[in-house]
Amino acid sequence: MQQLLTRACSSVADSVGRGHVADYIPALAGIDPRRFGAAIFTRDGSHATFGDAGERFSIQSVSKVFTLAMALRAIGPALWERVGREPSGNPFNSIVQLEQERGIPRNPFINAGAIVVCDILLDFAGVEETKRRLLTLVRELAQDPTIGFDEQVADSEAETGFRNLALANFMKAFGNLRHPVDDVLDVYFHQCAIAMSTVQLARASLFLASDGQDPLTGSGYLTDDQARRICSVMLTCGHYDASGDFAFRVGLPGKSGVGGGIVAIVPGRASIAVWSPALNPSGSSHTGTLALEKIVMDARWHIL
Amino acid sequence: MQQLLTRACSSVADSVGRGHVADYIPALAGIDPRRFGAAIFTRDGSHATFGDAGERFSIQSVSKVFTLAMALRAIGPALWERVGREPSGNPFNSIVQLEQERGIPRNPFINAGAIVVCDILLDFAGVEETKRRLLTLVRELAQDPTIGFDEQVADSEAETGFRNLALANFMKAFGNLRHPVDDVLDVYFHQCAIAMSTVQLARASLFLASDGQDPLTGSGYLTDDQARRICSVMLTCGHYDASGDFAFRVGLPGKSGVGGGIVAIVPGRASIAVWSPALNPSGSSHTGTLALEKIVMDARWHIL
Amino acid sequence: MQQLLTRACSSVADSVGRGHVADYIPALAGIDPRRFGAAIFTRDGSHATFGDAGERFSIQSVSKVFTLAMALRAIGPALWERVGREPSGNPFNSIVQLEQERGIPRNPFINAGAIVVCDILLDFAGVEETKRRLLTLVRELAQDPTIGFDEQVADSEAETGFRNLALANFMKAFGNLRHPVDDVLDVYFHQCAIAMSTVQLARASLFLASDGQDPLTGSGYLTDDQARRICSVMLTCGHYDASGDFAFRVGLPGKSGVGGGIVAIVPGRASIAVWSPALNPSGSSHTGTLALEKIVMDARWHIL
Amino acid sequence: MQQLLTRACSSVADSVGRGHVADYIPALAGIDPRRFGAAIFTRDGSHATFGDAGERFSIQSVSKVFTLAMALRAIGPALWERVGREPSGNPFNSIVQLEQERGIPRNPFINAGAIVVCDILLDFAGVEETKRRLLTLVRELAQDPTIGFDEQVADSEAETGFRNLALANFMKAFGNLRHPVDDVLDVYFHQCAIAMSTVQLARASLFLASDGQDPLTGSGYLTDDQARRICSVMLTCGHYDASGDFAFRVGLPGKSGVGGGIVAIVPGRASIAVWSPALNPSGSSHTGTLALEKIVMDARWHIL
Repeated sequence: MQQLLTRACSSVADSVGRGHVADYIPALAGIDPRRFGAAIFTRDGSHATFGDAGERFSIQSVSKVFTLAMALRAIGPALWERVGREPSGNPFNSIVQLEQERGIPRNPFINAGAIVVCDILLDFAGVEETKRRLLTLVRELAQDPTIGFDEQVADSEAETGFRNLALANFMKAFGNLRHPVDDVLDVYFHQCAIAMSTVQLARASLFLASDGQDPLTGSGYLTDDQARRICSVMLTCGHYDASGDFAFRVGLPGKSGVGGGIVAIVPGRASIAVWSPALNPSGSSHTGTLALEKIVMDARWHIL
Repeated sequence: MQQLLTRACSSVADSVGRGHVADYIPALAGIDPRRFGAAIFTRDGSHATFGDAGERFSIQSVSKVFTLAMALRAIGPALWERVGREPSGNPFNSIVQLEQERGIPRNPFINAGAIVVCDILLDFAGVEETKRRLLTLVRELAQDPTIGFDEQVADSEAETGFRNLALANFMKAFGNLRHPVDDVLDVYFHQCAIAMSTVQLARASLFLASDGQDPLTGSGYLTDDQARRICSVMLTCGHYDASGDFAFRVGLPGKSGVGGGIVAIVPGRASIAVWSPALNPSGSSHTGTLALEKIVMDARWHIL
Repeated sequence: MQQLLTRACSSVADSVGRGHVADYIPALAGIDPRRFGAAIFTRDGSHATFGDAGERFSIQSVSKVFTLAMALRAIGPALWERVGREPSGNPFNSIVQLEQERGIPRNPFINAGAIVVCDILLDFAGVEETKRRLLTLVRELAQDPTIGFDEQVADSEAETGFRNLALANFMKAFGNLRHPVDDVLDVYFHQCAIAMSTVQLARASLFLASDGQDPLTGSGYLTDDQARRICSVMLTCGHYDASGDFAFRVGLPGKSGVGGGIVAIVPGRASIAVWSPALNPSGSSHTGTLALEKIVMDARWHIL
Repeated sequence: MQQLLTRACSSVADSVGRGHVADYIPALAGIDPRRFGAAIFTRDGSHATFGDAGERFSIQSVSKVFTLAMALRAIGPALWERVGREPSGNPFNSIVQLEQERGIPRNPFINAGAIVVCDILLDFAGVEETKRRLLTLVRELAQDPTIGFDEQVADSEAETGFRNLALANFMKAFGNLRHPVDDVLDVYFHQCAIAMSTVQLARASLFLASDGQDPLTGSGYLTDDQARRICSVMLTCGHYDASGDFAFRVGLPGKSGVGGGIVAIVPGRASIAVWSPALNPSGSSHTGTLALEKIVMDARWHIL
């Protein structure tokens, strides 16, 4: 598997640096676009790494997978009354769609949906405790107690997050946020600011490839059913308005973030994380997507 | 003229109370839907009143005429770079349109546009001073120093104004608000909370029927050109998605508010204010609109 | 008045030819962009002309005023059940809006609305007879029996009118067209292909400035009320998504066409027609709009 | 497998008849809502049937899978320049989206996209020959020369297909249809009118579960890659605005039609067809979806 990963990643290495690094906050803009790392974990515990696999980066929207898992574990299918599970179709749909559908976000992976998920988590604990619980979960899943928030990133998000403030207030106007907007966004901005390496990210996602249970520790996090439904939402909605293209090219459930990280799940088999900060026009890692496409093709891991 | 007003208002009096009083804030919901007042001022200073003409109510969106006048006086045509002057067409366009047109509101009479106007006013003074200047202007125009904000209404607006917070943050994300959202909305919520009677409102609007000058005091507020352009925006955009219908039925520049007040301008001749709190489905005073229609028809004041 | 017209037109003459001539059909694309004509008729029968005032051009959407008059005369206010009278707001709203509002066009001056108006006319006669009646009306209004359709333009419209076919079929799907799409569009494409000069156009529109009656022949076409309501729709909806701007700059009811013609009504006083083929970005004659602005300002004819 | 199918179908049999039968054309409206059939084919040639498995019905949109396969085989990836592969998100997006994206349909499974696919097929043969080729393909795939068009259904589609006429003309206006609208729709209305049983449908779809090759005859239709990419589009876009829900509940590539048929592909393993005419609110067979969910769950065939 190490050979396969090395070969796949090497074959796309000349694409590294093409595209644009997210620059809406200074903390992200400063990243070297030529970084490139990847890591795979399989159910039996074997793993492989490539390049900057151990370097931490801002996982951004990839975190939405973990908060969705927390909320689903907490309230079960009732979650789907407050957020849909359909692809959003249009990049700019976010707020248009919210107006048309009266404050119910299309799915939990667009920003509006992830904000509702945070609001659900706040039903069970205060802001600080919720952030602590999220960190505890991610640390436990990754088996690494050193994972933390990048507070500088979280602060930057809060300072420039006017669009997210707009989304949150808009849903509040429709009654789909119960907690104060500032509290909900405090959690949201922190989840986006979790710093992890591809090794940590692949390890932390392994439970989704394994019926909701960590195959190495035996700890259960979700039911079989919950795990596969998160995967189905990742497959249809994991990449905003390029979800169809990702399914077409990679053929696996995945979730990308503007920090340049992507997680993909091979149901029943493995989890893969890639990272390279330069983004393609739809906001996913350019080299990361190419690497995933190659890995999956070579390993014949696609499920489609 | 008194006879004309009395006859016109009496003829629509049996419609009083039909429709729904705005209830999004408690301070408005408590108003008796059967109140009905009207006042006319002509350029020569004669005036007429009917019913509850002297009773104060929350002028709400009618205030957008006064802030637009202030901003236009302050920065002139540069205003139109930050807000359009086209009808918005769709009731729900507000935020949809903002997304499509990258934060430039369609016109200064939809909420988003009026919020930008407040932002412009804050270029010249702080929040408290801006509110003070607005009150000073309205008092001077109405020749009545007792006009003030209804702080209870302003507080209610602020507590429930999530949609306005969404609009403001959305425009901030597009760079079309320069001042802090909370400051801008503090001004905006106060302008909506100005309490005036139809007598005060008609008197305060007389300058728009008179080339931008108060015909009775001789004080100039706007150029001839500025006054008539405000009237043209009132005619095409003064009633959200029912602007065409108002032009069709009343045929005069007008501006309505959810408090049940409406102001109409007879260019070169007179200003009319009506008030009755029960609203038609498009959010304008039901009886007020009927009364205006009748007054204008009887006086043959329509400009179309 | 001749002096005023000459002076106003001369002062904007250096703008002639700026902008783009409509080129979606060959018959329009071949027109010399430097043509410029204007004509005014007043209620007392005096008139003035400038430049190419006698040259015929394709009146295109200006014709919607005449078909609206025919339909309103035929079925009265029932017309408003099948077409609205609100500005459409957005250029591309046409079909979007039709979908959202289930086949009811926003107003009779967007293409969809004018197509419904043709469908209404077909309730009273067959295709050929309807076209004949339209021509009869326009000839009578203009007091000129030589006015006709430019069949080459009508054919071109039919050959390339896929978007109009889309609109008509879409409304048919919603049940808002009663007659066969091809019949309705046959009438519609012909009305757009009426060829008239500014002299004929100004003369033919005079009844709208005169309570629905031709002031020179005494013939009545519309009631006072109907005439002024057409004017109100012209004012709020006459120029697609630039209606607000036209009201702002010219301040009169008007209707423009992509052939470069514009008609404006001075209620109670006069009708004005201008023509110059080069269009501004919103699809109205560039020089024509400037000329109207100047004429109206100099004559102090604006109603706002 | 027969036992599994029987048990799964029996367990949902009490839902039969719930929902509404498509009634936009008489030929569909007359179907007994209580019909229910299902069939499975596996790669090794074994198969199982249930209920009305042998009864023919109008496959409607399920046919889009076969025309997509034909077009992809004919022109390869160039197809994606004329039609996207992203979920459309919104039910009403069809024409709204076409306007915003200038005539490029979001994916080949919304009506607009399937119409473009027909236009591509007409590059290679005339209307009648194209229809013949489609039938030949489906007959060969199903190994059944008796499959044909239901001409009565095709006629009904043509008579009432105003919305499809609107879509086609709209795309023609944007230059994304090369052939005459009537020709393109003749093909389209016929593909929708193919009559097949679930046995025929499951058999005809087996090549998609088998790398593009019929595993029983050895005939190749698509490359491995083309087959799996069709599956990915089925997974993300196969059920209009309920595609996410289908992926969530069934977890397989699928395509539904308003005739009540659904095809699902188990990559590498099997094809499943179900039919029951009563539809759920999103336009897919109510009982069919439940049956698929149960079959897939019991067989543990889901890929997510």
